[in-house]
Amino acid sequence: MSHLFFQDKDPFAPISYGYEIEERLCSRQTKHYNLVIFRNPYFGKVLTLNGVVQLTEWDEYFYHEMLAQVALHAHPSPANVLIIGGGDGGTLREVLKHKVVEKALVVELDREVIEACKEFFPSLATGFTDSRTDIVEIDGASFLAQTKEKFDLIIVDSTDPVGPAESLFTSQFFTHAFSALKAEGIFVSQTASLHFHRLFARDVQYRLAQIFNLVDLYTVPLATYAGNWWTFSIASKVHNPRKVLRKCQVSTRYYTEDIHHHAFLPQSLYQKLMRGEF
Amino acid sequence: MSHLFFQDKDPFAPISYGYEIEERLCSRQTKHYNLVIFRNPYFGKVLTLNGVVQLTEWDEYFYHEMLAQVALHAHPSPANVLIIGGGDGGTLREVLKHKVVEKALVVELDREVIEACKEFFPSLATGFTDSRTDIVEIDGASFLAQTKEKFDLIIVDSTDPVGPAESLFTSQFFTHAFSALKAEGIFVSQTASLHFHRLFARDVQYRLAQIFNLVDLYTVPLATYAGNWWTFSIASKVHNPRKVLRKCQVSTRYYTEDIHHHAFLPQSLYQKLMRGEF
Repeated sequence: MSHLFFQDKDPFAPISYGYEIEERLCSRQTKHYNLVIFRNPYFGKVLTLNGVVQLTEWDEYFYHEMLAQVALHAHPSPANVLIIGGGDGGTLREVLKHKVVEKALVVELDREVIEACKEFFPSLATGFTDSRTDIVEIDGASFLAQTKEKFDLIIVDSTDPVGPAESLFTSQFFTHAFSALKAEGIFVSQTASLHFHRLFARDVQYRLAQIFNLVDLYTVPLATYAGNWWTFSIASKVHNPRKVLRKCQVSTRYYTEDIHHHAFLPQSLYQKLMRGEF
Repeated sequence: MSHLFFQDKDPFAPISYGYEIEERLCSRQTKHYNLVIFRNPYFGKVLTLNGVVQLTEWDEYFYHEMLAQVALHAHPSPANVLIIGGGDGGTLREVLKHKVVEKALVVELDREVIEACKEFFPSLATGFTDSRTDIVEIDGASFLAQTKEKFDLIIVDSTDPVGPAESLFTSQFFTHAFSALKAEGIFVSQTASLHFHRLFARDVQYRLAQIFNLVDLYTVPLATYAGNWWTFSIASKVHNPRKVLRKCQVSTRYYTEDIHHHAFLPQSLYQKLMRGEF
């Protein structure tokens, strides 16, 4: 057995997660990332970008289901879905589970991430060959600033809000997202750990609340992102994201209607967070 | 700045957390443990036993409040409380917040852990000098097998269920706990991560259900125990632990009545867990 070790170098976290490397499968310099894929005896294949773990086969479904399924079930008819980032295909897989989805557009900064994931994570990346899928290689902020298309859902599946993804959390970006959404549109973005990035998540809530009618925060317990108690910020024009508008008829491992309701913070904790008392 | 690094060596977890060591404060060989305390720039002081992080100043309150306050609030009048383990004093601090508590007995395997914590974590260890507190140095399983005393609450604040703490999770131990509880008694124990130790937590639920009328599981999102999504197994003779019987009048940072209710798994997830489908 090998004793190689991968030490996560997330500059955004005060703790560093380490993984045994059973086998190194891929190491590439893409346009934007140092991309490494290795196999771990417990977590299966692990994707890392610039030294930070992006997903493991073992627990990716917690993140991808919760990023996508809450908005998908809170919208009455999500036909046209935009995914910003999400080059591994996990979020796209969740979106395409819904027959009501007619078109999924993936706007990914770096197409080489998609190519590597098609090769090494085929079960995540199935959606890239679905006839409903289009891919555009451009950064999400530039895309939203110039698109004339209108979407039912915008899902931001980004890396940490430092470096390439920083532009996906500004008020300007949220304003462009609002404009690119139809009248019943919903926006959702991962917003890091409620342990380590509490102020960041709160700031995003405040920024979104200046633009959208309904803004909320929900969480999922992850196993492999530093801080684990992961937040998603969701913003909606008319539909309350806490409500499930369409009965869950897709196959999921973690997401259920129960989990949908349970994932939102209890009001007392949400209020504490927003007042800066937590 | 030092670049020393502490790599958690938890043999019970498939992932390893790493911490920068700003300053090493204490390193002792006690009767049962290699005890090391260091300072980290983010987490403050960190206690480790046999190479595994036991607490950090930054996030200990999530664990200690949730281990103790749920049972304390689900019992109508917890006057006599037994804590097994808990040598750092955090659980004792939570118990003694309640004026209704007349006696708290700490049964700790290794008194040198208490002495080190009194020295380096004085704000956690205040309860050891409270007149309501008694300390006995013996392993918890032996104590419960022979005690004639009866308690309102038994709280197990142990290390991982491997090594010294293994005897605290057997059916025999749970039977002895049942016998040492008064007619309205409640038992609660930490039962590791719902990510990494799901089968273990489920087994404990089944074992407890053979002895107690009401058995349940609740969780807290921690920041610094591997797996983070931490479980507590609670078992009660007559009172449903999901119910708050006494209004929360103690000062807490995370625990509230909202959080009490929210901490229990949604029924669909609990059922999946118990059927082995999760």
